Amino acid sequence: MHERVLFGAAYYHEYQPNDRLELDLDLMAEARFSVIRVGESVWSTWEPENGRFDLDWLQPVLDGAHSRGIAVLLGTPTYAVPPWLARLYPEITGERKTGQRIGWGARQEVDFTHPGFRFHAERVIRKIVERYADHPAVIGYQVDNEPGNELLHNHGVFQRFVDSLRHKYGDVQTLNDEWGLVYWSHRLSDWADLWTPDGNVQPQYDVAWRQFQADQTTEFIGWQADIVREYARPDQFVTTCIAYDRPAVADDELVRRLDLTAGNPYYSMQDGLQHPHAGSASQGWTTNGTWALYLSADRMYSSKQSPFLVTETNAQAIGAPWQNRPAYDGQWRQAAWALVSRGAKMIEYWHWHTLHFGTETYWGGVLPHSGQPGRMYREVTQLGAEFEAAGSLVADLTPDSDVTMLYSTPSKWLMQKYPALAHADGSPDERSYHGFFDAFYRGAFDAGLQVRILHTSQFTGSVQDAPVLVVPALYLADTELLDQLVAYAEAGGHLVVGPRTGYADHEARARTDVQPAKLAAAAGVWYDEFSNVSVDVPVRGTGLELGTGAAGSRWIDGLTVDGADVLVGYDDPHFGRWPAITSRAHGSGRITYVGTVPNPALSAALFRWIKPAAWTDLPAGVTVTSATSADGRRIRFVHNWSWDSVDLKLPGPAHDVLANQPTNGKLDLGPWDVRVLVEPDQ
Amino acid sequence: MHERVLFGAAYYHEYQPNDRLELDLDLMAEARFSVIRVGESVWSTWEPENGRFDLDWLQPVLDGAHSRGIAVLLGTPTYAVPPWLARLYPEITGERKTGQRIGWGARQEVDFTHPGFRFHAERVIRKIVERYADHPAVIGYQVDNEPGNELLHNHGVFQRFVDSLRHKYGDVQTLNDEWGLVYWSHRLSDWADLWTPDGNVQPQYDVAWRQFQADQTTEFIGWQADIVREYARPDQFVTTCIAYDRPAVADDELVRRLDLTAGNPYYSMQDGLQHPHAGSASQGWTTNGTWALYLSADRMYSSKQSPFLVTETNAQAIGAPWQNRPAYDGQWRQAAWALVSRGAKMIEYWHWHTLHFGTETYWGGVLPHSGQPGRMYREVTQLGAEFEAAGSLVADLTPDSDVTMLYSTPSKWLMQKYPALAHADGSPDERSYHGFFDAFYRGAFDAGLQVRILHTSQFTGSVQDAPVLVVPALYLADTELLDQLVAYAEAGGHLVVGPRTGYADHEARARTDVQPAKLAAAAGVWYDEFSNVSVDVPVRGTGLELGTGAAGSRWIDGLTVDGADVLVGYDDPHFGRWPAITSRAHGSGRITYVGTVPNPALSAALFRWIKPAAWTDLPAGVTVTSATSADGRRIRFVHNWSWDSVDLKLPGPAHDVLANQPTNGKLDLGPWDVRVLVEPDQ
Amino acid sequence: MHERVLFGAAYYHEYQPNDRLELDLDLMAEARFSVIRVGESVWSTWEPENGRFDLDWLQPVLDGAHSRGIAVLLGTPTYAVPPWLARLYPEITGERKTGQRIGWGARQEVDFTHPGFRFHAERVIRKIVERYADHPAVIGYQVDNEPGNELLHNHGVFQRFVDSLRHKYGDVQTLNDEWGLVYWSHRLSDWADLWTPDGNVQPQYDVAWRQFQADQTTEFIGWQADIVREYARPDQFVTTCIAYDRPAVADDELVRRLDLTAGNPYYSMQDGLQHPHAGSASQGWTTNGTWALYLSADRMYSSKQSPFLVTETNAQAIGAPWQNRPAYDGQWRQAAWALVSRGAKMIEYWHWHTLHFGTETYWGGVLPHSGQPGRMYREVTQLGAEFEAAGSLVADLTPDSDVTMLYSTPSKWLMQKYPALAHADGSPDERSYHGFFDAFYRGAFDAGLQVRILHTSQFTGSVQDAPVLVVPALYLADTELLDQLVAYAEAGGHLVVGPRTGYADHEARARTDVQPAKLAAAAGVWYDEFSNVSVDVPVRGTGLELGTGAAGSRWIDGLTVDGADVLVGYDDPHFGRWPAITSRAHGSGRITYVGTVPNPALSAALFRWIKPAAWTDLPAGVTVTSATSADGRRIRFVHNWSWDSVDLKLPGPAHDVLANQPTNGKLDLGPWDVRVLVEPDQ
Repeated sequence: MHERVLFGAAYYHEYQPNDRLELDLDLMAEARFSVIRVGESVWSTWEPENGRFDLDWLQPVLDGAHSRGIAVLLGTPTYAVPPWLARLYPEITGERKTGQRIGWGARQEVDFTHPGFRFHAERVIRKIVERYADHPAVIGYQVDNEPGNELLHNHGVFQRFVDSLRHKYGDVQTLNDEWGLVYWSHRLSDWADLWTPDGNVQPQYDVAWRQFQADQTTEFIGWQADIVREYARPDQFVTTCIAYDRPAVADDELVRRLDLTAGNPYYSMQDGLQHPHAGSASQGWTTNGTWALYLSADRMYSSKQSPFLVTETNAQAIGAPWQNRPAYDGQWRQAAWALVSRGAKMIEYWHWHTLHFGTETYWGGVLPHSGQPGRMYREVTQLGAEFEAAGSLVADLTPDSDVTMLYSTPSKWLMQKYPALAHADGSPDERSYHGFFDAFYRGAFDAGLQVRILHTSQFTGSVQDAPVLVVPALYLADTELLDQLVAYAEAGGHLVVGPRTGYADHEARARTDVQPAKLAAAAGVWYDEFSNVSVDVPVRGTGLELGTGAAGSRWIDGLTVDGADVLVGYDDPHFGRWPAITSRAHGSGRITYVGTVPNPALSAALFRWIKPAAWTDLPAGVTVTSATSADGRRIRFVHNWSWDSVDLKLPGPAHDVLANQPTNGKLDLGPWDVRVLVEPDQ
Repeated sequence: MHERVLFGAAYYHEYQPNDRLELDLDLMAEARFSVIRVGESVWSTWEPENGRFDLDWLQPVLDGAHSRGIAVLLGTPTYAVPPWLARLYPEITGERKTGQRIGWGARQEVDFTHPGFRFHAERVIRKIVERYADHPAVIGYQVDNEPGNELLHNHGVFQRFVDSLRHKYGDVQTLNDEWGLVYWSHRLSDWADLWTPDGNVQPQYDVAWRQFQADQTTEFIGWQADIVREYARPDQFVTTCIAYDRPAVADDELVRRLDLTAGNPYYSMQDGLQHPHAGSASQGWTTNGTWALYLSADRMYSSKQSPFLVTETNAQAIGAPWQNRPAYDGQWRQAAWALVSRGAKMIEYWHWHTLHFGTETYWGGVLPHSGQPGRMYREVTQLGAEFEAAGSLVADLTPDSDVTMLYSTPSKWLMQKYPALAHADGSPDERSYHGFFDAFYRGAFDAGLQVRILHTSQFTGSVQDAPVLVVPALYLADTELLDQLVAYAEAGGHLVVGPRTGYADHEARARTDVQPAKLAAAAGVWYDEFSNVSVDVPVRGTGLELGTGAAGSRWIDGLTVDGADVLVGYDDPHFGRWPAITSRAHGSGRITYVGTVPNPALSAALFRWIKPAAWTDLPAGVTVTSATSADGRRIRFVHNWSWDSVDLKLPGPAHDVLANQPTNGKLDLGPWDVRVLVEPDQ
Repeated sequence: MHERVLFGAAYYHEYQPNDRLELDLDLMAEARFSVIRVGESVWSTWEPENGRFDLDWLQPVLDGAHSRGIAVLLGTPTYAVPPWLARLYPEITGERKTGQRIGWGARQEVDFTHPGFRFHAERVIRKIVERYADHPAVIGYQVDNEPGNELLHNHGVFQRFVDSLRHKYGDVQTLNDEWGLVYWSHRLSDWADLWTPDGNVQPQYDVAWRQFQADQTTEFIGWQADIVREYARPDQFVTTCIAYDRPAVADDELVRRLDLTAGNPYYSMQDGLQHPHAGSASQGWTTNGTWALYLSADRMYSSKQSPFLVTETNAQAIGAPWQNRPAYDGQWRQAAWALVSRGAKMIEYWHWHTLHFGTETYWGGVLPHSGQPGRMYREVTQLGAEFEAAGSLVADLTPDSDVTMLYSTPSKWLMQKYPALAHADGSPDERSYHGFFDAFYRGAFDAGLQVRILHTSQFTGSVQDAPVLVVPALYLADTELLDQLVAYAEAGGHLVVGPRTGYADHEARARTDVQPAKLAAAAGVWYDEFSNVSVDVPVRGTGLELGTGAAGSRWIDGLTVDGADVLVGYDDPHFGRWPAITSRAHGSGRITYVGTVPNPALSAALFRWIKPAAWTDLPAGVTVTSATSADGRRIRFVHNWSWDSVDLKLPGPAHDVLANQPTNGKLDLGPWDVRVLVEPDQ
């Protein structure tokens, strides 16, 4: 689609205190910008009063961009409702609990399923898109923005939830049986008996409720996309920008209604990008650690199993007034190339300016508050030149992968309310799903391997596509999927199973099988008990090489070996009776079972055993990742995530893409530096 | 009543996905189970719709149990209201604050004082009990379940609270005077002026409010017990199962309406049972530390000053999905014997199965989710055999005691809202009453002494019954009780007084006396100031032998000696002017005053001075407790709460009850091991 | 006005369980008390029912006081509404959020702007003041008590807020422009569109909302003062007692409606008074650290730039039942003399008794609960004798100052919602304004300098009044004020600018200038980026002498030097490119820019460079402060804030005021000791 990686920023000229449109666009052009995103936040500007529209103000922006060869991504403004609409129909206000309305004054306060909202949203969408669809600058549309921000408890939403259960289960007796409502006297006599979600403590209810909430988001975005498509040109795409941490988003389902995946990866800069990662900062809507930046990229690729747009990512600072941490020199380039290496076709900063008013005054843009180009602009300009130098070679990459990991959004949701893991202080860890998942992902990353993430909905069982398949914490799984996993191993795949996988069925009912349910026989291990642990339990390797400090953590399955080989055992008077990691050949393949959350040292050791990295003996802070270009060439990205300059001997011939010169077998990288290499065709 | 300790589990066949009744009962019989508890959680099964009853489903369970010699404890199902009832009368929903209803979806959401609830509860109770009272398996009834879970703020509850004040105080002027309502302009002109408890900050109000709440629970449980007794056979008992940490329970008052005490002690397993206790985990509805397990047993004995039933206790795991910590081998046996040694006549696990659905999916039962006997079943089976071997000798024990401690539920309540102690970070410690009480209990336990706990309502002043009486934190006390304490010492008792005792009267009004009020003269010390302390203040002994590390902590009374001997002083430039512990002979007895929260080392030293343990020089992890059997013999329980095997020389002849062999003066215990010894008649 | 420092306590005889009026007053007289405060808390005693008044009960207190030469400060009782009034008009209940009423049961629950409240408040005020205005004991009035405790969200309050915006901005279009309401679709079409403050996240709204709330407090107190003045004698003053941490108080504006400033400084005792301050305890309504006690005194002086009354300060304990920390011997005297040295004309403890009931039972008074004089009474009696000995010499002091600091209440407010600083765990620090301000204040204090605090409203630009002016965190500032700062330096002042100063305009809009806005050129440095830092960044001095451990902390401006000299730089691979502190001569003066929150070592070093202390080489725990007496003499206060006795050589001749003897050039101070010296006229 594009000759080079799309490069740019969200651009809100309407937020500026002075007219500086020409200056801004000239600066962008100088930085080799090729795209801007506009218009998605200002419904009250598009429609200052009920039914009175003001559509022309954007024209100069689109014209100015077009005249400089900058493309435009046009947004629909539905995520921020105008005050007049909030005043006219207070019933459209979202409710966080039954009857408890979200206060107005921010954005995304609305029950977007309410017809009173839909009527007005549709009207303004049609006006805007009709007005600008033909503008030559417009290459695509973003409908709404970071949807799925709330679990809506409004009356209508709940009633439709009950309807959806009625349609699915038919009668209350079936629901009583499927959900085990005999428990604690919850059996319904009629659909009207169903309690609202506020007080609910039953996991089975929660499974349905979270899926229903995500369905609302998918339906809403799909509805918008369909409206926009009535006006869009065939060469224009429709997408939305996904914040992957939002509670009501099933990204794989959502993107089916869209042409492209677009996501907003935010990451901690400065020491937050050190590798190996030493900090204990937790993950959230911003990631912490280099490995976590790659994980967010791989999740974006996974939504549609294809290259994606980065609609927003860190400019100078990310978030609240007390969280300013602009990058060290080099880090913006590093992060951008990291994203591109994992399939990003666009890098768009949030945002060009820095706001002078409003909540996000300290969400620093490419330009500081002064509006004068500063350090980040200089860094961005260098990056723009690099993208131009690399051109189409890196514009549509397929990221390489050594191992595949299976991702289960429903398991993630359920563990938010019913976490299997505790924090160090004993309190529940609402990110327990990622507590398991990330430990494996990071181990692979630290071992120099690359990961493809597959949603369970995307899993075909193909061994060729995924010679190694890692499946931790697949807590909710129907029997068909579990059988498919065994068949995958039988067909030659290396299935690596982590704790909690297969434990419950699709209704979150603990299975009556010996665990891991449906997998135990083929894996050659089973368990019927398990334990949380507060301190790491040291391990000793019998079947693989461990570095110092390897340990199990947080969770231990009490594995009984029944045919498998023991790779790793615990050094503990109680847990020592059970192995930590086992492996067993099954059919043409193999099943490795990991009965704990491996700490970083253990996880990296496991993955080194699973598959050696392409390049070994790298200096501590250096990573090498790779991708395949549209024309089939192998591209390598060499990063130095540290303050120490490093020398690197290359294992083979390669061309330095950005310097456009041969490497002569050696690379020297400065602090926080990155190189892009292309290997000769083989 | 019984030939051996009742042994069993709560059994909910109605929760099982498959019919496995015969299998379950056979497994129970094999494990020597003698009792199950049934039926208390499923009102919506007993009465699927308003007025339509389904009473027969339990028959096979009772029949099957009976045929295997397993007795049944039948529950009334009132703690979990059916959805149809919740729908019909929303006004019965409990309110946590005025007008703020508890969400439906769990259990115990109801205002159990509301006549709309009472009507339906009475009807279903009568139906069930009438149906099964004659069944030969039924030995007793549990009415409701863990009552007193909420402080109900419903309109009717509050209005009856005002009525109760009117009845007690007669007119508002009296209330104004008694409660000091001149303060901050709170004087009432009429009963209608009384503010609701939500905003209340006056301690005097809180005293009445908490007692009124507990009265509601007592009345409700008594009301149910009386209904059940209309149907019960004379050989059947009525009880309820008490969770001692519930906010609206006065256990000594509650059990007066019942035939027997029944309680639910839950405790942390694994390292939570290490002795001496090193962890810093706090107490809650689960205890932490071996000493705390004994404390919970002694509190159960105290409710009625008689042996008690353990209706629920840990099976595999206790609580939330992130809190799985099944015991080390041996610990379940250790804990069961510990409870029996302190007067338990029944050990009933919660529960037999592990649930496949619902909130408590990870509240692990005797059987794992697979339903196949595992490690715990094997441990339980060994324990069943041990109970059989010990037989009637241990079935109705009176636990021995070296010291008696006075317990004040109203003082505990008041300190929840007005804590005298802070956490390490300076925030209030809502468990301040136990912050004082536990420090003394644990010191006695660590010194090898056994404790009888007396409620203030049970205190008679008898020196013979209680040669040593320890009274910490008796903050709320009327003058009569304080005078009784002095008389007790005068009559020959050793009264050990801790901080805060006697400080306030029964209305929580600080007394105008020099402190400790009414006790100062006889104790030979007084104070008029006190201080919280954030770091431990080291002490030096002048009158008793201290180990290393002895210190005062959290609170220091500024004691002025006026006739007492100083036993311990502070090593501090400010606090050093005051003694930490003093003692003075008074009449035929003695009053020892402890002006601080003794840390474990100081507290153990104090109790070693008060009374030497029966057996001394025990290995670090070993405890010895004792009880008197129904036939008057002394039984000793020797526990090794550690991973280290130990050898023990016995001070005298004894017979090993479980091995049924003489001990030959020596015992060797493995890790987490226990022995039961009976001494020859003397 | 007075011959010596007024000395006394709040006195609530109406709260006592027994009549002990004569005893109390005798004890006070013996302790040389000269003032009591009465009557402000008991509206329900003044008016037991609607319209029925009981006004005579106070007469004996006033008579008894007067007969002993004790003056009386008479309070109006409006801060605690009687229950009958709360019952009659529930609509006067304050709302913390829209529609969310504060529970009754404490005090200050009322919407004091509501006419239903005003009607009753006015009636009772007139009754009381009319009754007692002529009493010879009464020297002044306190209206209400610690006002501004809540941000009131009542309907009427909000509607008047909208009215105030309408009056200020004229039309919604102007408001849309000024507040940047284009952002996130917030443009209003009509005044009715304005959202309530609950959900607001826009800084511009917050600026107006907080000022409006403070205006309500000022208007209310002024209204009361005006009523009282209708009755007051010319020799009587009117004030209120200010808790400076209350959310709705602009103290400089409030005191314009009053004759005198009166404030309530509470401070942590025991190790909370150690100097230098080592603890990490944070500041709140109680201060922690000696420097912070002086800061609270200097803030009281600043309200009206004149001597002030201390209406309440620590007696035995301050606050909740878990916070008892009565002072070490000497500390009460130290603190009282510290306050006097900074301009206090009255020291009044809260309070004489200790309450036997109510929330504040553990807010220990001068007397303990026993009512018998104890350690504090003895300390107080010594202090009373000292005040008598010092007499008029110290009764009306003007505190000396070496440096002046500019204080911005609006900046403080804004940073409560939009903090620039984070706590160590990354969470926002709601006291961020003081996070900046206090770092500078403490540095000056540690360097032996004294500080005058000026509100921005009081700044005249005079170099003579303020040769050194320190301005940190002046985030909200209009252009005129920034220009005035530059003019001040030009005229010869030494302007010391800290981070965040000038960043935003009066509407909290980030300025479009290069920063520090309007100051950059004259300061010779500018920045356009900045960073929060989690760990201290070490510095190295190039232009001033640093001790060990000097570091920048929490915040770093990325300063580019453009004419200034670099005094201090960072030792860091990233931040090292920028200086930490620069200085540049400007006009006849100088501008020093500090681009970080200096840690204590760096801040003290900075102030040692700015100005040498009067006395140097003091022992570690010793401070010397000074003031000018009414007759123009220099008084010095020498404190030893430690357990170590110290010897001190004096730099010049001085007379020991309290011992009434010459010093002979030497002083020896015991632990927690204080001396008052007067220097001979020069």
